Amino acid sequence: MPVTFCTFALMSNIKPSLAKGTRDFSPQEMTKRNHIFDTIKKVFKKYGYAEIQTPSMENLSTLTGKYGDEGDKLIFKILNSGDFLSKVNPDLLAVKNSNAVTSQLSEKALRYDLTVPFARYVVMHQNDIALPFKRFQVQPVWRADRPQKGRYREFYQCDVDVVGSESLLNEAEFVLIYQEALSNLGLKDFSIKINNRKILSGIAEIIGKPELIIDMTVAIDKLDKIGFDGVSKELLERGFTQEDIDRLKPVILLEGTNDTKLTTLKQVLSASQIGLNGIEEIELVFNYVQTLLGKDGEQPKLELDITLARGLNYYTGCIFEVKTNEVAMGSIGGGGRYDDLTGMFGLKGLTGAGISFGADRIYDVLEELNLFPESTAAGTKVLISNFDPAAENYALPLLYQLRASGISAELYPSAAKLKKQMGYADAKNIPFVLLIGSEEMQSALLTLKNMHSGEQEKLSIEAVIARLREV
Amino acid sequence: MPVTFCTFALMSNIKPSLAKGTRDFSPQEMTKRNHIFDTIKKVFKKYGYAEIQTPSMENLSTLTGKYGDEGDKLIFKILNSGDFLSKVNPDLLAVKNSNAVTSQLSEKALRYDLTVPFARYVVMHQNDIALPFKRFQVQPVWRADRPQKGRYREFYQCDVDVVGSESLLNEAEFVLIYQEALSNLGLKDFSIKINNRKILSGIAEIIGKPELIIDMTVAIDKLDKIGFDGVSKELLERGFTQEDIDRLKPVILLEGTNDTKLTTLKQVLSASQIGLNGIEEIELVFNYVQTLLGKDGEQPKLELDITLARGLNYYTGCIFEVKTNEVAMGSIGGGGRYDDLTGMFGLKGLTGAGISFGADRIYDVLEELNLFPESTAAGTKVLISNFDPAAENYALPLLYQLRASGISAELYPSAAKLKKQMGYADAKNIPFVLLIGSEEMQSALLTLKNMHSGEQEKLSIEAVIARLREV
Repeated sequence: MPVTFCTFALMSNIKPSLAKGTRDFSPQEMTKRNHIFDTIKKVFKKYGYAEIQTPSMENLSTLTGKYGDEGDKLIFKILNSGDFLSKVNPDLLAVKNSNAVTSQLSEKALRYDLTVPFARYVVMHQNDIALPFKRFQVQPVWRADRPQKGRYREFYQCDVDVVGSESLLNEAEFVLIYQEALSNLGLKDFSIKINNRKILSGIAEIIGKPELIIDMTVAIDKLDKIGFDGVSKELLERGFTQEDIDRLKPVILLEGTNDTKLTTLKQVLSASQIGLNGIEEIELVFNYVQTLLGKDGEQPKLELDITLARGLNYYTGCIFEVKTNEVAMGSIGGGGRYDDLTGMFGLKGLTGAGISFGADRIYDVLEELNLFPESTAAGTKVLISNFDPAAENYALPLLYQLRASGISAELYPSAAKLKKQMGYADAKNIPFVLLIGSEEMQSALLTLKNMHSGEQEKLSIEAVIARLREV
Repeated sequence: MPVTFCTFALMSNIKPSLAKGTRDFSPQEMTKRNHIFDTIKKVFKKYGYAEIQTPSMENLSTLTGKYGDEGDKLIFKILNSGDFLSKVNPDLLAVKNSNAVTSQLSEKALRYDLTVPFARYVVMHQNDIALPFKRFQVQPVWRADRPQKGRYREFYQCDVDVVGSESLLNEAEFVLIYQEALSNLGLKDFSIKINNRKILSGIAEIIGKPELIIDMTVAIDKLDKIGFDGVSKELLERGFTQEDIDRLKPVILLEGTNDTKLTTLKQVLSASQIGLNGIEEIELVFNYVQTLLGKDGEQPKLELDITLARGLNYYTGCIFEVKTNEVAMGSIGGGGRYDDLTGMFGLKGLTGAGISFGADRIYDVLEELNLFPESTAAGTKVLISNFDPAAENYALPLLYQLRASGISAELYPSAAKLKKQMGYADAKNIPFVLLIGSEEMQSALLTLKNMHSGEQEKLSIEAVIARLREV
């Protein structure tokens, strides 16, 4: 509260509103959001990942050119301070060329994701960090997208990445991280899909159309929605022949267990070194997962899915995507290996791999499945009633005693009618009210009311503390 | 990792840097920062405050005019998206009038503090919240200040405020919140200074210069730095007479216990209703604190300090400021009561009171006093060595077993020389290394090395887990 407001009277008629595409989070929502973040972070830490944070704003030059032309347009730029027009070319202003003056009006921008800032971090701190560097990062990002249901201009990303380790153990651990974090959040039926960029390259290679790999994967990716006939039609439009499609068919329609799929793929890709390489990587990940789990570990639902593409220009090895099967919802996580994370900042040859969790979608899933724990756990546990100054005076040291015992407690801050105080406890979802009237003060036996069951008990303050510690 | 990078080759020669006045936080720094935030938040919750969050960006109209002209200049504005020049008046562009075009170029801005967004929140959600509404908020704010030592353009504020309750119990609880949170952080000698805006008004009133209250407090506020003679000189320059100063002298030089000060003040202010009111409020806060603490509670170092002013236009009742006496450092916290928080958004008559913690300064203080707990507590607890594929294979289920027991564990992700693996454990401050060689695999007795003492023990995996759980 360190600020002076000078113009109260002047401002009093502005009707407040949120900036488009942004959200407030209420105490109830924060409790739920923190539950998600805390659960995920705890697993990250157990796997040896450490938290870093980067600034919300980066130099514009750090961000532009990293997300494609469309992405560049969605970066929120920050207007330079002071007399920002003075440096701008007047000719460009005269013709109102917004594009051309952007870099003269703005030096800084809000981060668009956590990956580019992380790459910058690794390069800038390369002398201080021990490789492999395993970091997680949970921070908001900003995109000037058109807001719509489920798409916001400010949202959190939860990323976990390792740089400087080629071992496929990292990929196997990502599978276990997804499995553990999502299970801990209460999800029961979800699939962790895995594919490998090298397998896709191999497929394009054996058809003799390596240059059409993007067209191929974009089409294959739609199998779920448009079926094989639709995919065929799109492939023909994108420059493939009927013969190509006949060769692709067994791959696109690959079904069965992971083992069955791998056996078929090995035959189809027997002439492609890169394709066989991809298969080998997938097999190594599967083996790592099995060996890690030993006899007792719970099997994750890990599915080889050849139609999985993600950002193909970017990934170079294994790619992941996670879907829940309990609710209709897009992917709730994804990631993969990229061979040159830091190259864009001049540090070559550092491999990286990472996954992320879609916190906002996970929130919606948990809400729909009613999987959030009772929110009361995090809030005030007991409200002490306040009927008159004598009762207030009696209550104050008890309030202190409750808190000293680690119990979140409040005294209703002024004398008020019981109904009003009960309404306050209800609105805040406080599970217990401690009623102190003249009888209670005389007997030193306080009335503890359970707000869920309505039950009342007469207890000493010591017994109240013991009771509240139990629940 | 959901993004496609299109232009790796093009971008490879940019030397990355941070935006001016911003910071990266390493894993070690994050552990320390989280320690501060977690400690403070835990106390907030114990006192019945619940967390909310507001968006980083607000409509520019929500923010402008709330912080004075100087503040307005320090607000980071966000450039409109798309063809942002199209709507701008060409005449203003031609004369390069930056000030006049700002509102045409920018609709949104980054929040400057947490108080104005909170006021907007209360007004927008007034139908959903139960009064008194007790919220805390820990989020970054942005100011386009000239960066210098200890002053950043992005920094965190930790605010706790209550709206809709006039009770001075809230002020008393702020004293206890400061006392508990700072003690829990390990600070031993700090002063919580208290004053009241009404006392300052009373003093200006009895001198007969109520209109000069700001000048008076600005001058008095400097007593520490320029002494009484300096203050006298400044008061003369600001329109006070020598007679006024003679009457002010006993107030300015007020010393002794809180009781002594209050006794003197009561005499000096006996003719000022508002002044006596302020004294009464202070006495009530003192009484609340004493009654709350009962017989056993630790006494906070609470000092009535008549030279304490803070943002005087803004506060209307008690004001607070906290200083540590162990390190030379400005205030590490402050706040007070404001009678009309939400009036600026058209909701009149809601009183508020709040305090904040200066997390960045507290960080520096704890660092200087070496009060951070050992950072290892939060990171990986044990690294398993990796010498060859056989040992790796043997280690994998043990790794899983360790994690399943809740122990943060890593396997070095590929076979490497012992020195390299030990160096990695050192760099990450990992306290234990589990060495697995052929002997260990044969005997199933693993070598657990304590990285601090250098001690080695041969233990079964069960004994390793038991040992690591202890520490």
